Formats: sequence, structure tokens, C-alpha cells
Amino acid sequence: VPDDLPTWSLPGWYVAGRDPRADAAVAGFDARNQQLTKPRGSLGLLETLGRRLAAIQRVERPVSRPAACVLFASDHPVAARGVSAYPTEVTRAMVANFARGGAAASVLCRRAGVPLTIVDVGVAGGPIPSRDPSGEAMYLRDAVADAPVGDLVDGDAMPPATYLAALAAGAAAVDVVTERGGVRVLLVGEMGIGNSTCAAAVTAALLGPAAAIADVVGPGTGVAGAALDTKRAVVAAALARVRGNDDGVVLDGHRAMQALGGRDLAAMMGAMARAIERRVVVIVDGYIASAAALALCSVAPEAGAGLLFGHRSREPGHRRIFSHLTDHTAPGADALWARPLLELELALGEGSGALVALPIVDAACALHGAMATFGEAHVPDRDP
Amino acid sequence: VPDDLPTWSLPGWYVAGRDPRADAAVAGFDARNQQLTKPRGSLGLLETLGRRLAAIQRVERPVSRPAACVLFASDHPVAARGVSAYPTEVTRAMVANFARGGAAASVLCRRAGVPLTIVDVGVAGGPIPSRDPSGEAMYLRDAVADAPVGDLVDGDAMPPATYLAALAAGAAAVDVVTERGGVRVLLVGEMGIGNSTCAAAVTAALLGPAAAIADVVGPGTGVAGAALDTKRAVVAAALARVRGNDDGVVLDGHRAMQALGGRDLAAMMGAMARAIERRVVVIVDGYIASAAALALCSVAPEAGAGLLFGHRSREPGHRRIFSHLTDHTAPGADALWARPLLELELALGEGSGALVALPIVDAACALHGAMATFGEAHVPDRDP
Repeated sequence: VPDDLPTWSLPGWYVAGRDPRADAAVAGFDARNQQLTKPRGSLGLLETLGRRLAAIQRVERPVSRPAACVLFASDHPVAARGVSAYPTEVTRAMVANFARGGAAASVLCRRAGVPLTIVDVGVAGGPIPSRDPSGEAMYLRDAVADAPVGDLVDGDAMPPATYLAALAAGAAAVDVVTERGGVRVLLVGEMGIGNSTCAAAVTAALLGPAAAIADVVGPGTGVAGAALDTKRAVVAAALARVRGNDDGVVLDGHRAMQALGGRDLAAMMGAMARAIERRVVVIVDGYIASAAALALCSVAPEAGAGLLFGHRSREPGHRRIFSHLTDHTAPGADALWARPLLELELALGEGSGALVALPIVDAACALHGAMATFGEAHVPDRDP
Repeated sequence: VPDDLPTWSLPGWYVAGRDPRADAAVAGFDARNQQLTKPRGSLGLLETLGRRLAAIQRVERPVSRPAACVLFASDHPVAARGVSAYPTEVTRAMVANFARGGAAASVLCRRAGVPLTIVDVGVAGGPIPSRDPSGEAMYLRDAVADAPVGDLVDGDAMPPATYLAALAAGAAAVDVVTERGGVRVLLVGEMGIGNSTCAAAVTAALLGPAAAIADVVGPGTGVAGAALDTKRAVVAAALARVRGNDDGVVLDGHRAMQALGGRDLAAMMGAMARAIERRVVVIVDGYIASAAALALCSVAPEAGAGLLFGHRSREPGHRRIFSHLTDHTAPGADALWARPLLELELALGEGSGALVALPIVDAACALHGAMATFGEAHVPDRDP
């Protein structure tokens, strides 16, 4: 683990009496919520969601907009070991597809009115020429894209300097994206052939011996049979390299990410931390983004307060991440902690699950902000 | 049960070889879906959803819009037995709140760009004067609002003529709402103090002895303690009246609805059937709307093909309805049958869960319609 790791100043879970601005916001939220024309608590987790945003944003009426979506893209040397159903060139082709507006993320961003930014932190073949005449997606290439990397099995995924640069690339992207338009909610996702192998290795390392390889290594983009066996063997070999001969070792989040992750995962980790520092709520996308969130929470548990999980994918390891996070709940965590907003058996990545979940966050904020109170609507309340 | 029950001509679950137009639509949907720039099947239930709509709408590229929301409102004599946390006047006040744009449904409809129609099928106190200068919500009062009703315990919820008129009121409202603008997706919900008691009674009657009273009678708008005991006793008494001394009797959907439902529930049942006849896909709201769907499916199992369930509420009976429907799956049913799109612990009704789920249906259609194909995007496919 490098010596000069970033330190983050994160707001943490809301606990009354610590921060007068948060206290005022939550009290205001609660008072209004009690007066809205609905039975108490009848909006369930939408109320939980609104209250979470009120505490983080420190406003009585939380907002979900402006929102922005940032996707981190990179290739992975481990892909050469035959762990994916698709060739490495697909990463590059898909980044071009994002920029041209044809990918799932493009369609969902357009529909939701959310700007899409692609941050290239290691797509093979060099910078991708911009071909988006509409300017719908912004494409940035970070210098970490040209930094040295490894393949997990023979050596660390990232030398310490690359790891630090990847974390910083995520933070820098968040600064660019959130300052452009006062973004309050950030959707974080990825694209990178091979990265579900890295996510599985990071997850296994952080969950410790409780997680069997088969529990965390799934089909990704669709490997099965012998290819899935290969993927599992690669993860097992990478874990053995890092853990030495002791299966019981549970790695630190930084070490797991540096040794077994990838630049896209590390950038997501850095991006989430930076967003939460800025009190921008993050909607985490799928399994790979959740592995980055898991690594972040393992080194900074208070980060959880800024994380919403868009969905639970059908990757088997995703369920394990939620179980682990539920078992490691920080004081003050609410009912949405480690609870995905959607369960639609998605397995695409590229922010798609976070984007499908965004309207739920929109709904929570719109309801709290715009519903009439009992007094305004002359509706008799139960406890007038 | 009345003699002159309506008969419905419903499309039913898609089975190849029965309907050439549906075959062509589904084949076209599948062919395009295979070519979109994503791993096969990676959009999970969103693909299932799109395919369902393609089959019902008989088009290769299904659409979620125009959509409309219709809420059926009525009061219930059983409310006088102390089964609700709120007084009967709240039904009337909330209908006025819908019309003025202050209710949860109003806010969500506005946000989603969905017209809201309130059909008064029995709000106490007579027609509600229109007070919506914006014209956001349409208010209709059906003649069934003045028809005789009973309280479940002493007599049937609706005499046969009232029951038939309530079914017809639902169908008539669908004709009005869907013809205004070529609606393709209809969200169906309700408002009525006391109606979770009716929904529980209908559910218990249709699930048979497998469902204990405590399994299906929940807090509704928030009753607890002695009031919840009262609510359970009322449902038990109503069931005993209808079943006679034989707990093992499983009622027919029409008889259960007529004896134990209410005009709002029966109108929803009639509305759902009429929408599906018109090949308009229905998003069912919460527990009460699902009880109406359960009654419909018990007399017309093929109706399931036209029903999407917006969410699972926190009412305990809702889970029982889904279990029952899962156990009674018709041939051809897909993975979304009896599977709620959301589980957000809502307990509000008034279409709110269906409205929060609508963006998921929008996403499924938008992705299928607008994503680039492998060929268009020059992305290498796994099996070119």
C-alpha cells in the first residue's frame, strides 16, 4: 500500500447534535413530512431516501437534480487470460458508442436529461477521437490511462503510483462534472472488458474466507462452462498471490484495490469519496461499482451515508456485497443502507442500473417538495 | 352472483403460433434485441418487460406512452365499524386534493407527464365541485356512486346490480381515458377510506383457508392495537357470513368481489379487464388494486398477460397475493408474472407505486427502441 494515501473528510451518517446545519435540515424535513397529505410513513423507503438526502445536502427540501452520470472506462491485462466473453476491443468500441449516443447509458441519460461523461482511465489504443457531433457525451482521457498496470495473477493490478493516480483521476473527474452545473446527485458506473474479474477478486479479498470463489465470480458479460472455470481459477490464483498461503487474511480496501482491482474500479472509489466530500449523493451502479464502494467503505465506513445502491444485479457476488455491508453497518445508518433500490436481474454495468433507479430518487424529492400539507388541502389529519 | 356477468375477450399470454400478428411482433422484438450493443440478456427483466409489451401491443418496438393514470374512489359502509385510522371524510377531501394537484398521485403524474383521471364511484356527499383551474386532473362521477351498498358483515358489499354497474363503470372510464390520446399503458389505483378492509376480505376469500386472517389484514393507513384487532374481527365476520360454517370454501372472483369488495375495487377489476381487451398494458398499483387483479385473474386467468405489478407494498397480504399468483401461473407466463417491479415499503395507494414504477417501463421501451445495434456501432459481437 502506498504511503501517501488520500485522506477524505466525509460527512458520515446523520446523528443528531453533531452538526447544527444538518440538525436544522433534518428537523425541517421531518416536520414537513409529518404534514404532507398521506398517512404517516406511507411512502416507506421514499421517505427514508428523502431524509438521507436532506441530511447530506443539509437542506429541508432535498433535490435530486441536477444529476450527472460519470462512467470510468479502462482495459485490463487480465482479459488476456480468457476471462471474458468479449474481446478487449469491445471496451474501445463501446466508449465510441457512448460518445455517439447508441449505448444503453446514452439512451437512459438522454431520457432522464442527465449529462453523460466518459472518463478514459486506460482504454487500450490511446485517446478516442471525438465523434459526437451532438456533444451529448463528454469524453475525458486521464493521464493514468498511460500508467503501468499488471494482471493480478503475476503482479499487482496497479503499482502504487498508478493506484494513487487512478484514485485522483476519479476525484478530478468529479470536480469537473459536479462544478459544471451544481450537480447534487452523481451516478457512478464503468465499462471495461475483464473488470468483473477484478471486481470479484476485490470482493473476495474484502469479504475474507467467508466468501467462496464460486460465490463472488459470476458470468459477467456471459462466460459459462470452461471459461467460467478459467475466470474462477484466475481469481483464485490472484488471491493466493496476495494472501500468501493464509486463506484467512482479509485485506484492507486500499491494498485489495491496488493489488486486485483496476484503474476503472479505483477511479470509481476515488470518485465516490470525492463526491461525498462535496455532499453530492452517489447512486452506485452494479456489481463492479459496488466492489469499488465496498473497498471505499472498508477504509472509510462513514462513506456509506453518501451512497445509494441503484440495483442488485444478477451477479452472485453482488448479493454477497450487500450481505457484508449489512453486517457492517455504521451507527446512524438508515433502512436504505446496503439495500438496492431495484432488483431487475440486470448485468450490464455502464451506469444502467443507477440510471433506471434515478427516477425513484426524483420521486422521493418531488413528493416531499410538492405535496400539499393537511392544512393546505383541508384534509382532516388523524392527529390534528 | 348475478346472471349477466360480463364476458371479456382477452389476449392472454403469448404462445407462438396462435396469432400471426403477435408472432411477427415478438420475432421482430427478439431479432432486434439480439443485435443491440449489450451482452445477450444483460438487461434482465427489462427485456422480459419489453417482450411482454411487444406481444400485447403486437408491435416490434413496444411503447410505454401515451400513459394515463386512473384512480377509482369510493367510500365504504364498513368504515363505520372503526377499521381505519382516518375518518370517512378523508376520501372526499383527498379527491379534492387530487383535483387541486396536491396529492402524491398529483405530484407523480405531473412529474411523469401522465394525465390523471379520478372516477368517483361512491364518494359520500355527492359530486365534488371541480376546483382545478389548471385542468390537471379530470374528475368523473359515475352513476354507480348513488347505487345501494352493504357493509360486508351484515350483507353483501354490493347487491348484484351495483356490482355489475361498478364493473361497467371501470370499463367505461377506460374507454374514455384510453380513447383520449391513444393510451398504451394504464396505471390503475384507488382512494377510499376502509378499502384495505375490503381488499383483505376479498384476498382471504380467494386464497382460501391457506391464508390466515392475520396474513391478509394489515395496518392499511396505519391502524394498530385494538383497531387492528377490530379490523381483523370484521374481516373474519364477513368471511364467516359468506362462507357459512365451512372455512374451506374458496370463493369465485365475482362472488368474492360482490360480497366482500367495494365499488372502487370492482371498478378497478372492470377497468383492468377492459384495458387488456384493448391491448392496453395495466400497471397495477398496491395491495388494494392487486386484490382487484387477483379477483380478475381468478375468473379470467389469461388477464395476467396484460398486468404488470408496480410494486409490493408493506401490507402483509400483498406478499400472499403474489405467492398465490405465482402458484397459479398460466402457460406462457413470463418471469415478470406476479413479480413486483419495486419493493419500497409503500403503503399509500392512490396509484403511487404504479407511478413510481412507470419509469422502469419507459426505460425498457426506450432501450429497445433507441440503442444502437452491433452493426450500427461497429462493436464486435461475441457471435458475429
